[in-house]
Amino acid sequence: MIQRLIKNIERTNAPIVVGLDPMLSYVPEQVQKKAFAEYGETLEGAAEAIWQFNKAIVDATCDLIPAVKPQVAMYEQFGVPGMAAYEKTVSYCQEKGLVVIGDVKRGDIGSTSEAYAVGHLGHVQIGSKTYAGFHEDFATVNPYLGSDGVKPFIKVCREEKKGIFVLVKTSNPSSGEFQDRMIDGRPLYEWVGEQVAAWGEEHMGDSYSYVGAVVGATYPEMGKVLRKIMPKAYILVPGYGAQGGKGKDLVHFFNEDGLGAIVNSSRGIIAAYKQEKYAAFGAENFADASRQAVLDMVEDISSALLQAKG
Amino acid sequence: MIQRLIKNIERTNAPIVVGLDPMLSYVPEQVQKKAFAEYGETLEGAAEAIWQFNKAIVDATCDLIPAVKPQVAMYEQFGVPGMAAYEKTVSYCQEKGLVVIGDVKRGDIGSTSEAYAVGHLGHVQIGSKTYAGFHEDFATVNPYLGSDGVKPFIKVCREEKKGIFVLVKTSNPSSGEFQDRMIDGRPLYEWVGEQVAAWGEEHMGDSYSYVGAVVGATYPEMGKVLRKIMPKAYILVPGYGAQGGKGKDLVHFFNEDGLGAIVNSSRGIIAAYKQEKYAAFGAENFADASRQAVLDMVEDISSALLQAKG
Repeated sequence: MIQRLIKNIERTNAPIVVGLDPMLSYVPEQVQKKAFAEYGETLEGAAEAIWQFNKAIVDATCDLIPAVKPQVAMYEQFGVPGMAAYEKTVSYCQEKGLVVIGDVKRGDIGSTSEAYAVGHLGHVQIGSKTYAGFHEDFATVNPYLGSDGVKPFIKVCREEKKGIFVLVKTSNPSSGEFQDRMIDGRPLYEWVGEQVAAWGEEHMGDSYSYVGAVVGATYPEMGKVLRKIMPKAYILVPGYGAQGGKGKDLVHFFNEDGLGAIVNSSRGIIAAYKQEKYAAFGAENFADASRQAVLDMVEDISSALLQAKG
Repeated sequence: MIQRLIKNIERTNAPIVVGLDPMLSYVPEQVQKKAFAEYGETLEGAAEAIWQFNKAIVDATCDLIPAVKPQVAMYEQFGVPGMAAYEKTVSYCQEKGLVVIGDVKRGDIGSTSEAYAVGHLGHVQIGSKTYAGFHEDFATVNPYLGSDGVKPFIKVCREEKKGIFVLVKTSNPSSGEFQDRMIDGRPLYEWVGEQVAAWGEEHMGDSYSYVGAVVGATYPEMGKVLRKIMPKAYILVPGYGAQGGKGKDLVHFFNEDGLGAIVNSSRGIIAAYKQEKYAAFGAENFADASRQAVLDMVEDISSALLQAKG
């Protein structure tokens, strides 16, 4: 799957991922109204609204992008119908040829981590049959519990040729509270990064590992260091756009081969129509605004990479 | 809700929680057969099997115990139908007067953490209506992302009078990989414990905080230290029984008031009938075996606490 991700990135020439994190407040009124008319102001109605919203954005952008990253929390807040909308979104994106990174940030121990891995990346055995519950291509994983928490994911990933991105340095302001604490002269996130590199050896693709890392765009200097610590890890980079990261902050997350990083934008793409810059599209053409925001993001990152090379 | 948890513990005289972590392999054949006869060997069939299994165990033990802790991963592995079985289990336990601790180990940042908090502990706004998706009473939370990840949970908890347990020192063998790393002369888990105490000040009950901690029974010496660092935090203690923790290991997790800790056992209770000790019950009386295992666990912990006092 890491090979397919790379192939998709090379084909689109766009090292980006669109975060499908649909807050109900992002969904234009006409979409909400239609969903509520059919299902009422219910969990099912909200789930239908975010699904239709996602579908329109995917339809408008899927030829430009290699991957999407649905944030499961935004679906989970709508209970069981929300989880059904999540699964439907994953399926639809895969039909459209997109790689799906489930931003689930799961992590537990032993058989429990394995259950998460099975539910999101694998197949569960039921009597003589097997089923794939949420069947994402990649999942994000929290490392706080150590190898016991991560290795069951790697086990399932090896069976399924799927991958994970382990949280190393997150994009939020308080990420330093624990992640930056100094241990033997080096911050915790570097130790986690070293461990990611070690875990990655256990499940390699051709040139990159199936075990990637999450490093926030908001910390470019740390990204530069982590790039070197984990040379074979694909870095999933959140924090671009709405959280403050810019194209020029991103160049050191990439390797010299021009690969090695994939930059996420969520609100900046899916709620583009709410920005002054794209206001001319209007709420009725929200998906076209998202398409334009994708084009602008790719341009911003490409020109920064070109400038850095030149 | 922390008051209700304490009241339930005092009423039952049992500082324990039953982990409803139903692997399909724990579910006796007659229960599986019946579910598969109705729904086939499908995700729905598996969800029905684990729900009926849970129901029987809850019916057989609910007068003896204050709380349950369903592990969402075990449901999530069965996709959307599994999540429906999770919600049904939460509802049923609440009807029976039990406090429900959702072992979800969620954790993200800002609006994403808030979405998790809303989905598991709060109410989501849909048009003019509100709904509670999974409506547990407590949830477990991963601290790796720092205050940005935890405070949105506390915000929702304040609105709803609900609580969280933050992972501090987990019960697994590799928990030390990051949690035990020394920072300015003290292990990371102590720093996290201090932060839990500080977060806890923001949402206090009468004598204990709504912000508790997870500390594994497998590390009694660390439990002793953490008890002092977080005097007002309820400690949820996994790792008893199948993972190796014993009654005598637990005494230092409690405060002098006899409160302050609640000990979880999952496999040791719900799959008791598979142990030699309870084999006489037979698979058909699996729920009675669970009841006996609860009685034995309470006796083990009570006598250890009594001995420590005397």
